[in-house]
Amino acid sequence: MEDKIRALFFDIDDTLYDSTLQANLARESAIKAMIEAGLDVNEEKAMSSLREIVRKFGSNYSYHFDELLKKFGYDPNPRIVAAGVVAYHTTKIAYLVPFPDTIPTLLRLRDLGYRLGIITDGISVKQWEKLIRLGLQHFFHSVTISSDVGREKPDPEIFKIAIKNAGCKPKEAIMVGDRPDRDISGANKVGMVTVQIAKGKYRWVKPRDESEKPDYTISTLADILDILKRT
Amino acid sequence: MEDKIRALFFDIDDTLYDSTLQANLARESAIKAMIEAGLDVNEEKAMSSLREIVRKFGSNYSYHFDELLKKFGYDPNPRIVAAGVVAYHTTKIAYLVPFPDTIPTLLRLRDLGYRLGIITDGISVKQWEKLIRLGLQHFFHSVTISSDVGREKPDPEIFKIAIKNAGCKPKEAIMVGDRPDRDISGANKVGMVTVQIAKGKYRWVKPRDESEKPDYTISTLADILDILKRT
Repeated sequence: MEDKIRALFFDIDDTLYDSTLQANLARESAIKAMIEAGLDVNEEKAMSSLREIVRKFGSNYSYHFDELLKKFGYDPNPRIVAAGVVAYHTTKIAYLVPFPDTIPTLLRLRDLGYRLGIITDGISVKQWEKLIRLGLQHFFHSVTISSDVGREKPDPEIFKIAIKNAGCKPKEAIMVGDRPDRDISGANKVGMVTVQIAKGKYRWVKPRDESEKPDYTISTLADILDILKRT
Repeated sequence: MEDKIRALFFDIDDTLYDSTLQANLARESAIKAMIEAGLDVNEEKAMSSLREIVRKFGSNYSYHFDELLKKFGYDPNPRIVAAGVVAYHTTKIAYLVPFPDTIPTLLRLRDLGYRLGIITDGISVKQWEKLIRLGLQHFFHSVTISSDVGREKPDPEIFKIAIKNAGCKPKEAIMVGDRPDRDISGANKVGMVTVQIAKGKYRWVKPRDESEKPDYTISTLADILDILKRT
């Protein structure tokens, strides 16, 4: 890197914590609880149906478990649905913890004098809830959320807004994220240095074109420190 | 009592657990967390404004804390709202525990051979979530919830449906609840034996007429055993 890096921006899901593991375990717990509450179905079949339902109705839909019961020919059953909801939320909160190297790495980066920011898509209050439960709400100089700025990754505008807040040039800023199609593609377009973290399901997804290719790939967040040493 | 009691029905909130304490502490925690997150207001003023907002918009409204910020002249601030939401939910779950004598009393009643049921107003999945988190979901032979049967207390119909499920006559059934206007009034109308438990804010509310006067008043759930001995 020719320009000195001054700022680092991070995605949240599968970048600062294991949201893929969290989502899978929460769904598994929910299915197990519903089976214990009387849903007489095969666990693996139920998991794959639930995945289909989440794809079809989106992850913010409130009636995934009602749809699952319907799919298996059950009448509405609030007792079984409630068993799933309680297990789901309990598991989701239990696994809302940072990767082991997230906090040490963020601390080290602050000690080194970098500006730190979040660039994330989602509903603002929900994303702040995650940061608070992760214990990460105080680490960042700026938090840029799509629902606040009206632009979603990979729209270059959301990256430009975040960089402007940090008071640096795009090439003085690193974007760290897991998704080639959102984090890497968008940050490449504005001329940031891009780092893909190989976590979650996107680690298996090949870039569709040049714009989705990151400048660097890391396997865990602490590796960002090695990349910075090369500058 | 002339007729032998065969069944007992219970309300949930402020009957099986301290929902008034839970709601107050959850709101207090939320206000404190929002103040710590930067809301510069007097705690007691904020509490009384929040109570007003809950009264105005209803308890199932999703934007109480946004309204609170607006009321104190703040721009939308998802970080402060999220701090309130996290503190609110954490406290709410921590205090979703039965009164100390709830489980011992329900066990004793089952040992004595009574049919036990729930008669409650609310959204079915939400009420089942409460029973599950309270660890009470297995104690009852029937659970009758207004959103399932399309009638709310004090409508006599919801009591009739529950009694019919238990296979007994109204005068062979006791209704235990905290609210004169819903639990006692409705159960009196169908000829059940009525017991008001003096918990939560309704303990200070005088019956508005004869129909709201219970046959018995108890200060804690275990006292129901004394009433049954008199039969």
